Amino acid sequence: MNIPEDNTVQSRIELYFDRLWPINRSITGPGFRESLDILGEIIPTERLRFETGRKVFDWTVPKEWVAHDAYFVDPEGRRHAEFKVSNLHLMGYSVPFKGTLTLAELHPHLYSLPDMPDAIPYVTSYYRENWGFSLSHNELQTLPDGDYEIYIDTELFPGVVEIGEAVLPGQTDEEILFSTYLCHPSLANNELSGPLVMAFLYECIKNMPSRRYTYRFVMSTETIGTICYLSKRGEHLKNHLVAGYVMTCLGDRGQFTYKLSRRGDSLADRAARIVLRDNAEHAIVPFIPRGSDEKQYCSPGFNLPVGSLMRTRYGHYPEYHTSLDNKTFISFDALAGSVDTYFSIVKALEANLVWESRVQHCTPQLGPRGLFPSVSHASVAKSRVSLEEKLTAMLWFLNLADGQHDLLDIADISGCRLDLLTEVVQKVLATGLIKVVENAA
Amino acid sequence: MNIPEDNTVQSRIELYFDRLWPINRSITGPGFRESLDILGEIIPTERLRFETGRKVFDWTVPKEWVAHDAYFVDPEGRRHAEFKVSNLHLMGYSVPFKGTLTLAELHPHLYSLPDMPDAIPYVTSYYRENWGFSLSHNELQTLPDGDYEIYIDTELFPGVVEIGEAVLPGQTDEEILFSTYLCHPSLANNELSGPLVMAFLYECIKNMPSRRYTYRFVMSTETIGTICYLSKRGEHLKNHLVAGYVMTCLGDRGQFTYKLSRRGDSLADRAARIVLRDNAEHAIVPFIPRGSDEKQYCSPGFNLPVGSLMRTRYGHYPEYHTSLDNKTFISFDALAGSVDTYFSIVKALEANLVWESRVQHCTPQLGPRGLFPSVSHASVAKSRVSLEEKLTAMLWFLNLADGQHDLLDIADISGCRLDLLTEVVQKVLATGLIKVVENAA
Amino acid sequence: MNIPEDNTVQSRIELYFDRLWPINRSITGPGFRESLDILGEIIPTERLRFETGRKVFDWTVPKEWVAHDAYFVDPEGRRHAEFKVSNLHLMGYSVPFKGTLTLAELHPHLYSLPDMPDAIPYVTSYYRENWGFSLSHNELQTLPDGDYEIYIDTELFPGVVEIGEAVLPGQTDEEILFSTYLCHPSLANNELSGPLVMAFLYECIKNMPSRRYTYRFVMSTETIGTICYLSKRGEHLKNHLVAGYVMTCLGDRGQFTYKLSRRGDSLADRAARIVLRDNAEHAIVPFIPRGSDEKQYCSPGFNLPVGSLMRTRYGHYPEYHTSLDNKTFISFDALAGSVDTYFSIVKALEANLVWESRVQHCTPQLGPRGLFPSVSHASVAKSRVSLEEKLTAMLWFLNLADGQHDLLDIADISGCRLDLLTEVVQKVLATGLIKVVENAA
Repeated sequence: MNIPEDNTVQSRIELYFDRLWPINRSITGPGFRESLDILGEIIPTERLRFETGRKVFDWTVPKEWVAHDAYFVDPEGRRHAEFKVSNLHLMGYSVPFKGTLTLAELHPHLYSLPDMPDAIPYVTSYYRENWGFSLSHNELQTLPDGDYEIYIDTELFPGVVEIGEAVLPGQTDEEILFSTYLCHPSLANNELSGPLVMAFLYECIKNMPSRRYTYRFVMSTETIGTICYLSKRGEHLKNHLVAGYVMTCLGDRGQFTYKLSRRGDSLADRAARIVLRDNAEHAIVPFIPRGSDEKQYCSPGFNLPVGSLMRTRYGHYPEYHTSLDNKTFISFDALAGSVDTYFSIVKALEANLVWESRVQHCTPQLGPRGLFPSVSHASVAKSRVSLEEKLTAMLWFLNLADGQHDLLDIADISGCRLDLLTEVVQKVLATGLIKVVENAA
Repeated sequence: MNIPEDNTVQSRIELYFDRLWPINRSITGPGFRESLDILGEIIPTERLRFETGRKVFDWTVPKEWVAHDAYFVDPEGRRHAEFKVSNLHLMGYSVPFKGTLTLAELHPHLYSLPDMPDAIPYVTSYYRENWGFSLSHNELQTLPDGDYEIYIDTELFPGVVEIGEAVLPGQTDEEILFSTYLCHPSLANNELSGPLVMAFLYECIKNMPSRRYTYRFVMSTETIGTICYLSKRGEHLKNHLVAGYVMTCLGDRGQFTYKLSRRGDSLADRAARIVLRDNAEHAIVPFIPRGSDEKQYCSPGFNLPVGSLMRTRYGHYPEYHTSLDNKTFISFDALAGSVDTYFSIVKALEANLVWESRVQHCTPQLGPRGLFPSVSHASVAKSRVSLEEKLTAMLWFLNLADGQHDLLDIADISGCRLDLLTEVVQKVLATGLIKVVENAA
Repeated sequence: MNIPEDNTVQSRIELYFDRLWPINRSITGPGFRESLDILGEIIPTERLRFETGRKVFDWTVPKEWVAHDAYFVDPEGRRHAEFKVSNLHLMGYSVPFKGTLTLAELHPHLYSLPDMPDAIPYVTSYYRENWGFSLSHNELQTLPDGDYEIYIDTELFPGVVEIGEAVLPGQTDEEILFSTYLCHPSLANNELSGPLVMAFLYECIKNMPSRRYTYRFVMSTETIGTICYLSKRGEHLKNHLVAGYVMTCLGDRGQFTYKLSRRGDSLADRAARIVLRDNAEHAIVPFIPRGSDEKQYCSPGFNLPVGSLMRTRYGHYPEYHTSLDNKTFISFDALAGSVDTYFSIVKALEANLVWESRVQHCTPQLGPRGLFPSVSHASVAKSRVSLEEKLTAMLWFLNLADGQHDLLDIADISGCRLDLLTEVVQKVLATGLIKVVENAA
């Protein structure tokens, strides 16, 4: 392993990105396992395995798939769509095939994007036996008539869907879940960004001096992996999960987008809303049962408090699911920023206690406790804006420290920044004026 | 009866319009009965009768009224305000009167619209004995001084208020009500449009292969008739009515206006909202206890789920209650469109079941059930927009087929068109994946 | 006492303003008492006294303070910051001090406003022993180097915080509270306006022929006085208070601002909202636990239904807490208008009954009761707009006179002006059609 020139999160993420990029991942197979191993240097995961043929809710675990090589040769002897050049050239889960076809016979097996003639689309066929090649539309159009030699050296065999799971225990058995998926081949934003952000977020949480919540991290494969996972952990999560997030599309240069959970006002939603409100241009979008694994977590039988913090959403940027979603498209600053924002959410959740002031009747006296300047006059007030903001935050906090409102409520009602409120809590706590009533959940 | 040149709804409505137009209708009397008989060719009605003098809630059934002839003669021997030229010339419920008056004495009995000098206003005095003439302001201003001969040949005598009622039974005894009024003389939008739309809507509902709900149709007279009706059917409706609509002002060229029921979120309101959202430029206006018979249905003691789908509201077009509300003012396309829109509401109500998917945990597998293309790639996705919309509708439906949401809820939450959702339901139902939980009401 | 040239409220307020203006008020002491006595000519108050050293919730009653004289003399013999010229020159609660200081030593005791170089700021130090002078920044900058003679002749001694309280009893023991504070020296809007408006509002309420509610008036000192007051009356108010208002900043020329109670939808809030909606350009601002005594009334242990109707809020005008908040800044028309608006709220509260019509099923018949013109036609309708408005108000009232809605609800739902509804209630009441169900609270 290379040593990064500097030790910033950005360069460390880039190093892992470069190692993971070339691997041919899919929903099963060696590429997925190898990728888990590499990320395991930061986030060591237990492996959950689900054998081919196993019934998981409405689904059946598919065969395992390995691709060794694939291409086709045109009548003039030129190779096209070489898997070894780009793993996107081969349709995911292509069955083995060798033979000679005319261009007309080959054509239904070729995928391209006429609107994006330089891009190779990402195509899969997990649940219907098929084979195919993706290539740029420019290349497709150069193919001469005649006979083509097809060479697809893949294997489909009984194996396992595998999931990496890590848990960082906290003081309570209430849990926060982070879930991402590692089943895409050489694609950058969707999806190496999610696993990379998860790994470095894991590191941040692991290094916290204490944790109130237990944190659960899931590196799954989209849809089938998460369905497997929920068949094993679903009931546990129904009993313990207080907030969860699907991590995806976190590396592009766009603003943050938070997709609400199906409940719309879960703790996951409330924490994300306040953190984004305080910190960044962003959009909040409603739940929709399309997209990524949130549709499994938010299926009606689970209806878990799981939202998704992304940057630009899947399907909302043209590079999505094409060869243009590559290292150039993403930004390592954006990835590091995504780690930061997710960690801010973690801190918001950890700070989200319900407080009760020992003085409920009339305002507490701030001056003698060192919480308020005893001289008040307009000149002072006018010059120290931030003092004003702090005082406002303190008065709001004390007014709502009534055993009924958690800190996210207070941030929401007051409009005060959560970090300011958190600072106020520490200051007031040191005076003995407040006590915790209970955890919010 | 003439045979229309074509057999479109438009021409059939026009034929009935032309037959009904000249009849002098009022809240009682032969014109009302004759109009019910004509419409009875399409919507045969039972007649409910309430005798003069009968107490109905706070009201008393008035005498029956017949007008035979009326006019007045000016000093130069010219006849004015001839009832036989326009039944609007005679104030509704004018008592009989013959005599000679000076212009000054006559003047308090004359009604005109200075702002609309060509129009004859529609004037009535049901509950205070009086007589009067309406005429154009232009004509009013030409009247010379001198003695006028007044001739009003009317009769007021003990009789009945009569109401036409039709019921189309369904599988359940939950009811949908349509209510209109037939008590206006030669006026087109307000009000021959309501009875005409009701008649043709009745035909549509009668022809449905099956009906979940029982449909009740009421051709009443405004206010007193509907109060009589509620004195007889009010308790029944409190127990069985799930949605109802007052049909009025449905023939002008304006966009649809839906006036909410007093409850504001009744099933009537929800169905109308979604149908209008999907189909037409429209306005939703709040309940107000003015207007037409909705103020009886929505009086506090009943508070029934009754709204009103109109085009341009009574009082919001200058022709309202004048001789300018005539055949020229209305459009037979608009009338046919009103039938269609009401029928869309009926179909929305019929389709409004609560479904439960047999797969509640994680998404159901769509591919093997023929509900989802197994190959997904961007080029396909980009070209088939409607496929995307259908898939979205299907995923929303399955996510919310949780035994908690009726189909109108799903249309509302998802933003998907109701017809698309209805189509999805049929497709999914055929696979055996869903079952009905209960009727929504 | 001078006799005003005319006897308008404006001139009477001005007369009292002129007498109160020069008095050096503080949170304790003879100036406060003298001011209560003067206002007592209009609003006679009982005095509640809280001795120095007494614990009131989290606070301790401070010593009483009297200022006799204060100034300092510059090296050239000129006197500055003379208390007898303006009581703002002396920091409130300055301890006695006599001595010689260099300018550098004096400087930390001098307060000015660099951004408003002509203004003398209002500065206090109630809870930390200190002394100081306020002066204009212009004057501050002329002070030469050298030795200064400081002369502060004040006394701090065990005494009392004193509160004036008046009660106007009504038919019920449900109470409306008005609270203001009289602890500021020569400042006009904040705060002689509140006590002046309270005094004249008291007069209006005293002169009402009957009162449903009991009215309580509190002339307090900000913060400590109100905390003392709540220590005595808090439990009583929790049991009896239905609406309350903190009266402050009521004399400037700005539009009204209503600050909601912590509850946000208390009766106090609802009445103020409707009165302001009907009568004036205004702003509604959310509760915030800063500002004036509403933060005591709305502390979590009390959470009383207390809002605050102001004109321009404290801190939102530059003259606030400076010598520029003087007679020129305020308007006696504005003060009289503030009395009117508060009295409108009182009338709204008094009228806020829950009515039930004896006719719940269908509309009552208006004509025979003289509540509706029996001839309806467009020419009448078009010419008498206000008749239409009255009819709308009547129909709304009768529709919502269902024993469930109080009059403020009806004003809110219908959009009808409250005074129109009140007029309608009187008219309908005279016919015997309605009865009171219960008081709203």
